[in-house]
Amino acid sequence: MKAVCLLSGGMDSSTLAYVAKDMGYDIYSIHFNYGQRTERKEKLCAKTIAGHLGVKEFLEIDLRYLSLIGGSSLTDHSQQVDAFDDSREMIPNTYVPFRNANLLSIATSLAEARSADAIFIGVQSQDYSGYPDCRPGFIETFQHLIDTGTRDTTHIQLMTPFINMTKMDILAIGRDLNVPYEHTWSCYQNEERACGTCGACHFRRAAFMAMDMEDPIPYEQEE
Amino acid sequence: MKAVCLLSGGMDSSTLAYVAKDMGYDIYSIHFNYGQRTERKEKLCAKTIAGHLGVKEFLEIDLRYLSLIGGSSLTDHSQQVDAFDDSREMIPNTYVPFRNANLLSIATSLAEARSADAIFIGVQSQDYSGYPDCRPGFIETFQHLIDTGTRDTTHIQLMTPFINMTKMDILAIGRDLNVPYEHTWSCYQNEERACGTCGACHFRRAAFMAMDMEDPIPYEQEE
Repeated sequence: MKAVCLLSGGMDSSTLAYVAKDMGYDIYSIHFNYGQRTERKEKLCAKTIAGHLGVKEFLEIDLRYLSLIGGSSLTDHSQQVDAFDDSREMIPNTYVPFRNANLLSIATSLAEARSADAIFIGVQSQDYSGYPDCRPGFIETFQHLIDTGTRDTTHIQLMTPFINMTKMDILAIGRDLNVPYEHTWSCYQNEERACGTCGACHFRRAAFMAMDMEDPIPYEQEE
Repeated sequence: MKAVCLLSGGMDSSTLAYVAKDMGYDIYSIHFNYGQRTERKEKLCAKTIAGHLGVKEFLEIDLRYLSLIGGSSLTDHSQQVDAFDDSREMIPNTYVPFRNANLLSIATSLAEARSADAIFIGVQSQDYSGYPDCRPGFIETFQHLIDTGTRDTTHIQLMTPFINMTKMDILAIGRDLNVPYEHTWSCYQNEERACGTCGACHFRRAAFMAMDMEDPIPYEQEE
């Protein structure tokens, strides 16, 4: 069995690749550079995780055109990254328009070309601050798109086991699988010491604390 | 009104951009380089057409990662391009896996970032040799994906007026709109003189002949 795994270098995608490996899949990993501020660090983490997993392929894809398109503080470095704000009902400015459709389209092209059986993507609908392209309805529709847009002989299952999980659930799984979280990165803002205040840091730290686990990466600010 | 138009430099997408302009849209054009053999010529044509139309934006997107993924004679230059064969029921080897999903995902990202109302893509289900990502069901599903994967305040209509037309129908429209077909390119194989034998040439020449119009581009072989 072969699986294409989206490997950002964050804790979710890294845990998910360990899940796929544990299920017996050979891993074909894709890492995306879409001009995010912390790309250098994320790629280093993704490569390290890929090495630990013994992947069959590590494909780097340059999506920096997403920063030409603009519209997000994640890729437009003149915008400030929103700090996490529980009271906010709007989609935060780190949202990259339709990003996951871009990522999944490439993953599907690779999966069809390699005759893979599955694509693993670590989306979560709960913690992702309301990004529209992380919702279960989006994933269901994308599965339908794969079924209608590939050869009739191609059968690719989109696997999103984390979609209804919390980061705590994910950490519990990762702990059982011995995921080396010191080689993962979540912060949207910094590469050396995580900022501790952006949405990604907020959810990561909260999950480690709730699980009574120590987060092995360095932070700028103490909790 | 604003429209994102996919502009390959071929006769279909060029005609369609003229249709969008005629409907009153301001045009935001995207041209894709996905490592196809005839890219240099296609880009030249797309830029010329964009200039004639007075587009608001001409965005070049580098999708050469599709050739890293492989699986198509269009991007893998070690494979020979299939000649057109009417008896063949298989999908020809020029098929790039899930290509249109990649193109439409980027178009949707741009459309959402620019607050555009529509995306125009010149797909046809009839003449396209059975490519799975040109079928009406694929387009309907992609519309659904746009609706579920963008902000709730975003409303983008996927426009595919050519989907059930023949190339003859398209030429009839383009003739009325004075599309300068001398600045369009369809051949999959050559950049100086069209080969006349690949699928794209076959359908183009047949359409011009059936319409009793002269195709203004040069061919290697006489009909």
